[in-house]
Amino acid sequence: MPSDFTHAKDLIGQVLNGQSATELSQRLEPSWDAPAAKVSSGAHITPEIVERRWKRLPLPPEVREPLLPPEDLPNITTYQHNIENFIGIAKVPLGLAGPLRVNGLFAKGDYYLPLATTEAALVASYHRGACLLSQAGGCSAMLLAEGVSRSPGFAFATARDAGLFVAWLTENLDAIRQAAEATTHHGQLSDLRITIEGNHVYLLLDFYTGDASGQNMATIATEAACRLIIERTPVQPEYFFVEANMSGDKKASAQSFLSVRGKKVTAEAVIPAELVEQMLHTSPAKMVDYWRMSAMGGVLSGTIGVQGHYANGLAALYLACGQDIACIAESAVGITRFEVKGNGSLYAAVTLPNLMVGTVGGGTGLPTQRACLEILGLHGQGKARALAEVCAGLALAGELSIIGALAAGEFTRAHRKLARGKEHTE
Amino acid sequence: MPSDFTHAKDLIGQVLNGQSATELSQRLEPSWDAPAAKVSSGAHITPEIVERRWKRLPLPPEVREPLLPPEDLPNITTYQHNIENFIGIAKVPLGLAGPLRVNGLFAKGDYYLPLATTEAALVASYHRGACLLSQAGGCSAMLLAEGVSRSPGFAFATARDAGLFVAWLTENLDAIRQAAEATTHHGQLSDLRITIEGNHVYLLLDFYTGDASGQNMATIATEAACRLIIERTPVQPEYFFVEANMSGDKKASAQSFLSVRGKKVTAEAVIPAELVEQMLHTSPAKMVDYWRMSAMGGVLSGTIGVQGHYANGLAALYLACGQDIACIAESAVGITRFEVKGNGSLYAAVTLPNLMVGTVGGGTGLPTQRACLEILGLHGQGKARALAEVCAGLALAGELSIIGALAAGEFTRAHRKLARGKEHTE
Amino acid sequence: MPSDFTHAKDLIGQVLNGQSATELSQRLEPSWDAPAAKVSSGAHITPEIVERRWKRLPLPPEVREPLLPPEDLPNITTYQHNIENFIGIAKVPLGLAGPLRVNGLFAKGDYYLPLATTEAALVASYHRGACLLSQAGGCSAMLLAEGVSRSPGFAFATARDAGLFVAWLTENLDAIRQAAEATTHHGQLSDLRITIEGNHVYLLLDFYTGDASGQNMATIATEAACRLIIERTPVQPEYFFVEANMSGDKKASAQSFLSVRGKKVTAEAVIPAELVEQMLHTSPAKMVDYWRMSAMGGVLSGTIGVQGHYANGLAALYLACGQDIACIAESAVGITRFEVKGNGSLYAAVTLPNLMVGTVGGGTGLPTQRACLEILGLHGQGKARALAEVCAGLALAGELSIIGALAAGEFTRAHRKLARGKEHTE
Amino acid sequence: MPSDFTHAKDLIGQVLNGQSATELSQRLEPSWDAPAAKVSSGAHITPEIVERRWKRLPLPPEVREPLLPPEDLPNITTYQHNIENFIGIAKVPLGLAGPLRVNGLFAKGDYYLPLATTEAALVASYHRGACLLSQAGGCSAMLLAEGVSRSPGFAFATARDAGLFVAWLTENLDAIRQAAEATTHHGQLSDLRITIEGNHVYLLLDFYTGDASGQNMATIATEAACRLIIERTPVQPEYFFVEANMSGDKKASAQSFLSVRGKKVTAEAVIPAELVEQMLHTSPAKMVDYWRMSAMGGVLSGTIGVQGHYANGLAALYLACGQDIACIAESAVGITRFEVKGNGSLYAAVTLPNLMVGTVGGGTGLPTQRACLEILGLHGQGKARALAEVCAGLALAGELSIIGALAAGEFTRAHRKLARGKEHTE
Repeated sequence: MPSDFTHAKDLIGQVLNGQSATELSQRLEPSWDAPAAKVSSGAHITPEIVERRWKRLPLPPEVREPLLPPEDLPNITTYQHNIENFIGIAKVPLGLAGPLRVNGLFAKGDYYLPLATTEAALVASYHRGACLLSQAGGCSAMLLAEGVSRSPGFAFATARDAGLFVAWLTENLDAIRQAAEATTHHGQLSDLRITIEGNHVYLLLDFYTGDASGQNMATIATEAACRLIIERTPVQPEYFFVEANMSGDKKASAQSFLSVRGKKVTAEAVIPAELVEQMLHTSPAKMVDYWRMSAMGGVLSGTIGVQGHYANGLAALYLACGQDIACIAESAVGITRFEVKGNGSLYAAVTLPNLMVGTVGGGTGLPTQRACLEILGLHGQGKARALAEVCAGLALAGELSIIGALAAGEFTRAHRKLARGKEHTE
Repeated sequence: MPSDFTHAKDLIGQVLNGQSATELSQRLEPSWDAPAAKVSSGAHITPEIVERRWKRLPLPPEVREPLLPPEDLPNITTYQHNIENFIGIAKVPLGLAGPLRVNGLFAKGDYYLPLATTEAALVASYHRGACLLSQAGGCSAMLLAEGVSRSPGFAFATARDAGLFVAWLTENLDAIRQAAEATTHHGQLSDLRITIEGNHVYLLLDFYTGDASGQNMATIATEAACRLIIERTPVQPEYFFVEANMSGDKKASAQSFLSVRGKKVTAEAVIPAELVEQMLHTSPAKMVDYWRMSAMGGVLSGTIGVQGHYANGLAALYLACGQDIACIAESAVGITRFEVKGNGSLYAAVTLPNLMVGTVGGGTGLPTQRACLEILGLHGQGKARALAEVCAGLALAGELSIIGALAAGEFTRAHRKLARGKEHTE
Repeated sequence: MPSDFTHAKDLIGQVLNGQSATELSQRLEPSWDAPAAKVSSGAHITPEIVERRWKRLPLPPEVREPLLPPEDLPNITTYQHNIENFIGIAKVPLGLAGPLRVNGLFAKGDYYLPLATTEAALVASYHRGACLLSQAGGCSAMLLAEGVSRSPGFAFATARDAGLFVAWLTENLDAIRQAAEATTHHGQLSDLRITIEGNHVYLLLDFYTGDASGQNMATIATEAACRLIIERTPVQPEYFFVEANMSGDKKASAQSFLSVRGKKVTAEAVIPAELVEQMLHTSPAKMVDYWRMSAMGGVLSGTIGVQGHYANGLAALYLACGQDIACIAESAVGITRFEVKGNGSLYAAVTLPNLMVGTVGGGTGLPTQRACLEILGLHGQGKARALAEVCAGLALAGELSIIGALAAGEFTRAHRKLARGKEHTE
Repeated sequence: MPSDFTHAKDLIGQVLNGQSATELSQRLEPSWDAPAAKVSSGAHITPEIVERRWKRLPLPPEVREPLLPPEDLPNITTYQHNIENFIGIAKVPLGLAGPLRVNGLFAKGDYYLPLATTEAALVASYHRGACLLSQAGGCSAMLLAEGVSRSPGFAFATARDAGLFVAWLTENLDAIRQAAEATTHHGQLSDLRITIEGNHVYLLLDFYTGDASGQNMATIATEAACRLIIERTPVQPEYFFVEANMSGDKKASAQSFLSVRGKKVTAEAVIPAELVEQMLHTSPAKMVDYWRMSAMGGVLSGTIGVQGHYANGLAALYLACGQDIACIAESAVGITRFEVKGNGSLYAAVTLPNLMVGTVGGGTGLPTQRACLEILGLHGQGKARALAEVCAGLALAGELSIIGALAAGEFTRAHRKLARGKEHTE
């Protein structure tokens, strides 16, 4: 909705399914029945604790079996500090695509792409795109900007006070920077931007966070900055919050094109017409027709940026490599552009302004996650920029393959064929 | 970027790191070195095939070890039809939150929430929110609309032809519907919407897809509809594509608020002030102050909808339950609203227009995924609408907990404490 | 802002201009000095009333002179019902462009375009575009949809109640329609769309409004509908508003692409390469290069739709023809698309989903406004759809001319030459 | 559209009106009939030239009469340099609202607001809001940022070249600045921001433009900068354009919140509850209820910022005061926020990031336009910042009055009463 009237009525009819609206609506009322047993909470992981947790749950053993088979029990402590209320291990199949040749400022070479997904056809499609790019000499990739931000918000009695606060701020950047940077080895405050809206002041503190994705680092440093600000400012806010939802954290925002969030990267390739024909069964001109129509399709539907399916590849790589998959909401944004060049070849580029990736911290040290980063050769210090460039190359490979399939009229067939064993379920 | 000049210069300095720009830029050129071995591709999974695939890859055994331990080998065929180029299994720790009491049209009861994540503090935060809601009698949840769309695009010589095509279309809906619905047992074409842009015509075919997330079903049905259209229309397009990127597939779009994509659900609760104070250590008024400031923060940064962190919980639940995690890009969108009610209690609501969830098909039948759906009691036919309502309740729990932490000034502390063992890595 | 720190500091320095921040901020405090004389308010217009109004104002005669010269006094009563607190007449020079040949469903023929503006080069640019189109056989134009909406909002105690309300609504459409349509001769309720957000229900009542722009008509009919709803619904809202800001009134919104507001129109033309070269001094290929880059420029900066300068021509025509110029905020939105066709000619199209135009009511009956509509041959009943098609043709003419100038490198020169007499003022 | 099927069908039926689609579509074909006489074009204005222009047009004398009455003929040369193809004068009634007390950094005092419009109820509504604010001690207003940008675009063979170009740029800012600033007395290049998208580079050159609105100034300076860049850069683009549509010129964009375009201003007031009750017949709490619901209405419909009707007042003031009314498309954007303060009074604020206003240049020197600026006391050098603050105050007055009417249930009545003489026309 706004759905037209018929839809609304139709759905209501289905939902009611013979009951009166009033009967049904009673289901929605708060209920004071005795509650089910609470999950015993805690961050500590030992086989005994986990055992006890399961015991208190009214769940049958066949549910537990796949999540916590006996052979996994000895290794579960490795997940300490990455999860709370641990009860087992989720398993997702992993496919390998490529290699993808990346000629980047930081990434250089042939990369095998570990992709974890349960969606048929995804790995096959990226594999096809990666091989196409590699055969064209690889894609170029270029880190364009980096930084992670937090946006504390300060509410004053009046805009007048907000103005005095900002005037004070502009004289005290050094102290704020010191306070923020004292909390971190690698982080650096790279900018402090200011937005006044009435009597509200939003700050955007941008940090360089080295090879960590860096959101915790940025949060902790921002809190230190806020503490100092509150201690010293002669104009006290009525209240403030360490994050006031202007940083774009975990959501697509127009802002990421206009500044940066995480890592901004572009990747491009020029692909000879014969290669397009041979591997994608279509022509550069047809792919550009698709691009034009799909770019306007994105604009008509009100997307941020215009692209096809970055989310598919990024989600699979993020999941495999211990990245924060909730960041797909913000990372899967960008601009895809295709052109026919003078000599008839296809120019293809992707630009992603918001890649949240790290090669240390978060989930990157867990067993399968670390192994996947090692498949890429990108685990540990000094690798995050290269990982971002590989992500852009991956996105480019995916756009080429999917758009190729759509342009060649093969999109549906690919999905049907690869998922055929599952079709009865739909 | 647009980053101000200093930033650009600063980053370029870092990137150059002593080299000339020209030297560095040579790294970006296509490279014709001998390529690394190609992954041997294929959808079939047997221990032997996988063995051979690994053998051909120049990867050390310690990389393979965690991804494909001997004990997993016998069970890998279960992943057939969900992955290609299979090489092993990604493992993600699973925590349990709740139970969350949901009083929904379809979901009714106390739900344990299986959350797979590598991000410390996430499960603890949702657990807190779920317990808060349950103690308040549960959240109400209401399915508002459902449907999955595909958007084929047709390009004509002129807008004149486009108009004739549309006139023809409006006379032939029944045949189109028949063609589409002939491809599926459960799918129904519920609407066909039309957008003309110059000589381009975009259709939006909306389908009810039963308990499957339904994207493949919608694709296959749409292709059948397109074939019929092309066969019969007296006005041939110059070209057409089965999906022209107006459906919002795998991306946040303004459109999802104005129609529906997947399932649209709202969840709400009224929480007594004492409960807010006791469990969140803050007051309803303070939480509303946060809401107001953060809603405007979202607007200022150009987000679609205004919300806090839906992506966190949805990504973790989608991953655990075999949903398509790439859909986080579109699903993690909505509107959160908090108010203080007359009696001082907190009214809190979330509305998510774009939940892409299913309880059959896709990854829902895989071992750990199915087990997680069974923890929820929501595996199989007839459960998808309830799953959507639980997702909305989960999002509400998360917003309450995170905003509570931000309002109470405890946000940073929670993250620091739960991730402390990892801090050295950042 | 967010502007980087240096900017903020720099501006603050300029603003302070030697004063302390505290001194300056005192200027912002409420002031209780004796107020200046209040304008004597009223809608009635007679020479005497206006005379008295001026007398009470502390304004020198040389200010009044141009606004109310003696020769205008006898005719001022004509403005009754279009203004309050009348003090005189604003005068804007009027230029004529064209003729523009339009081959539309409703507009058919060669239209002289009356454009009121104070911006040098505007009329010349549209004139050039109109002549180009006419020489190419004219533009095709096609009305695609029409309707004006109001969006009342109803707030309930709970989403439960909101759901019951919607269930009731869907059973009572006929009565609501009758109540709405009883207030108007020409208006018809064409759709009633429903959006639930938590315990809030927004309705979108769409009206066909005949040849009036129709906003007042829609408001009055919507209020009647609301009154009936409130009288009859068994579920009373806590409060409601006749317009809850979801209709897109007076602002650009993503929604206008996805439904319609006012009139949706597309216009297109195919222009031979020689004509482009001769009249615009550039080539179709170069204009497409511009289009591609500017479309992505629009996406990067976060616009709604992608177009160049619709606002220029629309504002000038709206002003000349008695349309509501505040609607430029919503009307100047759309999609411009250029392509090179197989034979080398230029395909150009514009699609505007939100033209708020009328040929009766509002300002259309005032003397110069009516004369301008008569220049177009479009005053009075039965002409509004044609006016919308002419507006689309005008927008197309403007895009061709401006983009032609930019592609030919002549953009700056045109502005400099035509505004040269004014340059000393900048 | 996307409108549902029924709508499309319905409209097509109406449009066809008995004809076949094919017949109707023939109307859209290019037409080679003899064209109507071309308007004789030119910028020069003398009575004789205008006389000749009218003579060549096939228009009846009663059309000319109101546009060019004999008494206006002697003064028409004043419009030279502001219009081409001059044929007469458009006349719009002018109402006066206020005074509005503004306590600003630059504006200080009681301002009479000249508003030109043909929309009944507009002046009355702003008058009411202005009087309310004045009685509350006036509104505070604060200029927050200023600058006008142009966005030239440079297309390279590869992103590699784009990167080399940017590296060169960052070393040559001084020369670029000199070239740009050499074209203007008052303009200063305040920032140069850089966006890379694939092989495209967009620059945003921000200028301080003194008291002129400054778009021509920015264009001319940007062209000079581009010329210098092209002369000197060692990496030549394949093509470039002086404006590549990333500047937000004449359109609403998310970017204006994140940087600035024109002047960014906030205005606020705290209004005692009694005053709200007495003058608006409602309560602060009810107005905040409206604000909350309407803010979410804006978000749901996909607007940029959230506000009510800035366009109404700004369009009327821009028109009266010789501002570029096409800029309403970009200026009428911002954030309105209402809160109830601890003591029960109403806090109201507006923030507009994109006010394009000037007090010299453009139309500001024409007779009625200059008179209106003089009514404000804001004609000429040194007044533009104050004018921007008055605009923000005007927007605040309008929001208070309209939202007051909606909250009090008086919105429709006001419109009906003031426009009643016109009702027969709708």
